[in-house]
Amino acid sequence: MSRIAYVNGHYGPLSEASVHIEDRGYQFSDGIYEVVALRNGRLSNEEGHLDRLERSLKELRIAMPMHRRALQHVMRELVRKNKATNALVYIQVTRGVARRDHPFPKDAVPSIVLTCRTLPKPSPKALAEGVAVISQPDIRWGRRDIKSISLLPNILAKQAAREAGAYEAWLVETDGTVTEGSSTNAWILTKDGVLVTRPRSTSILPGITRGQVLKLAQEAQIRLEERPFTLEEAKEAKEAFMSSASALVLPITKIDGQPVGEGIPGPLAKRLRELYETYLAS
Amino acid sequence: MSRIAYVNGHYGPLSEASVHIEDRGYQFSDGIYEVVALRNGRLSNEEGHLDRLERSLKELRIAMPMHRRALQHVMRELVRKNKATNALVYIQVTRGVARRDHPFPKDAVPSIVLTCRTLPKPSPKALAEGVAVISQPDIRWGRRDIKSISLLPNILAKQAAREAGAYEAWLVETDGTVTEGSSTNAWILTKDGVLVTRPRSTSILPGITRGQVLKLAQEAQIRLEERPFTLEEAKEAKEAFMSSASALVLPITKIDGQPVGEGIPGPLAKRLRELYETYLAS
Repeated sequence: MSRIAYVNGHYGPLSEASVHIEDRGYQFSDGIYEVVALRNGRLSNEEGHLDRLERSLKELRIAMPMHRRALQHVMRELVRKNKATNALVYIQVTRGVARRDHPFPKDAVPSIVLTCRTLPKPSPKALAEGVAVISQPDIRWGRRDIKSISLLPNILAKQAAREAGAYEAWLVETDGTVTEGSSTNAWILTKDGVLVTRPRSTSILPGITRGQVLKLAQEAQIRLEERPFTLEEAKEAKEAFMSSASALVLPITKIDGQPVGEGIPGPLAKRLRELYETYLAS
Repeated sequence: MSRIAYVNGHYGPLSEASVHIEDRGYQFSDGIYEVVALRNGRLSNEEGHLDRLERSLKELRIAMPMHRRALQHVMRELVRKNKATNALVYIQVTRGVARRDHPFPKDAVPSIVLTCRTLPKPSPKALAEGVAVISQPDIRWGRRDIKSISLLPNILAKQAAREAGAYEAWLVETDGTVTEGSSTNAWILTKDGVLVTRPRSTSILPGITRGQVLKLAQEAQIRLEERPFTLEEAKEAKEAFMSSASALVLPITKIDGQPVGEGIPGPLAKRLRELYETYLAS
């Protein structure tokens, strides 16, 4: 089946979907995006993703290209046209088309693009055995809280991970602390049994899945600290895992080639994944 | 006259020029660019720009989309079709179209886009009176030596400058040193009479015009140091100016609202501009 995309008011075959070469998304990475998972026909954490989309746009002073209600309609229509049940709905908004010049153009109309693809799930092997991460210097810009399409450092880190046979790269500041993964948030269970993840700031993306995992951990009365942790601390941790809209909660069993804890997925990561799946099904 | 663009092998009206929505330039800012000035029908510093284009691509491990000779032919053909004499030729190369996924795709073919527009020149007033810059924190990523399209922090800084009534933003590291402008390199003449600009590193773009100005200054036996300078030092300088392919050498007479030196364009900036214009005409 050919996939259908939505571009600035029109649905059509993805293969023919295009934007102008002077779209500022193309020339300046002047735009933002969201990825919303569709599971069993339901959009997961839809409002959270749309809140963040609006926040990212506001930070960049790009207008919402349509009302939230209309966007929700487009998302559903796109899912329907793609006959999707388990999918990722990708939404991208840019400042629009204008003659190339750095400052914000006066009269540009924001561009909006949506695509829909099959939900890539971690393999049963990845879930059963956990995955490996490597560390990479965090060389991204200073506003990682904005979910911008300025993702060049992220893809370079992810590529480095893949070439090292790892699933993800954990990004490390010059002070030795881990910020997050190249497209996931980072968590550890310390050797003292405390679940730790970095607090919200301009250093990390406020993951929607991250926020929900925090909530579930609090409800389950798991000992929890939102604070930066170092790569060294992570390597000595009992458990490590990542969170994201597509991977949910995925155990990490190797960091830079060293086993984490026993080198197998830990009970807390498993439990949080179960709690998350229960939450999604509720 | 309608402008003509070149996109992946085809010349056509700019108004209809488009790229696929899953071009990695659009989704990940996974690409690079160059801007070459055409003056009186001649491409300025063409080889320097093409060397840098090849270097940027190499750093990102994107293949050259065509041989350099072929690209030079396309540049000339585009200039001819646009009947241009004084123009900016914009070249953008991205990793190509692939289903959205962070790692480098295996079989993507690089995309190449060229446009041509009238050369925007600093106004006679800007040249006669100099321009203002403001300082902004440098929050860009760690590889500013790659001329990537990951320009979101640059446009935010430029926009801040325009809203402050300034021409450019000078970007300042946490250690207080100026790296460069949002789209220009930064220079001062210290109160001790030494011309200073930041040396090449991953902190700045190796400006083609910057390199040529350095050469001309050396030939003219001007006292010169390539070293970082602080914003404070710049504010106490005798002169300040910026360099870029379109602005050439442009005097700065205000930094954060404070006059530089006498508050009028200094003799060294004027001289270097003249030397540059002579070089271009030679």
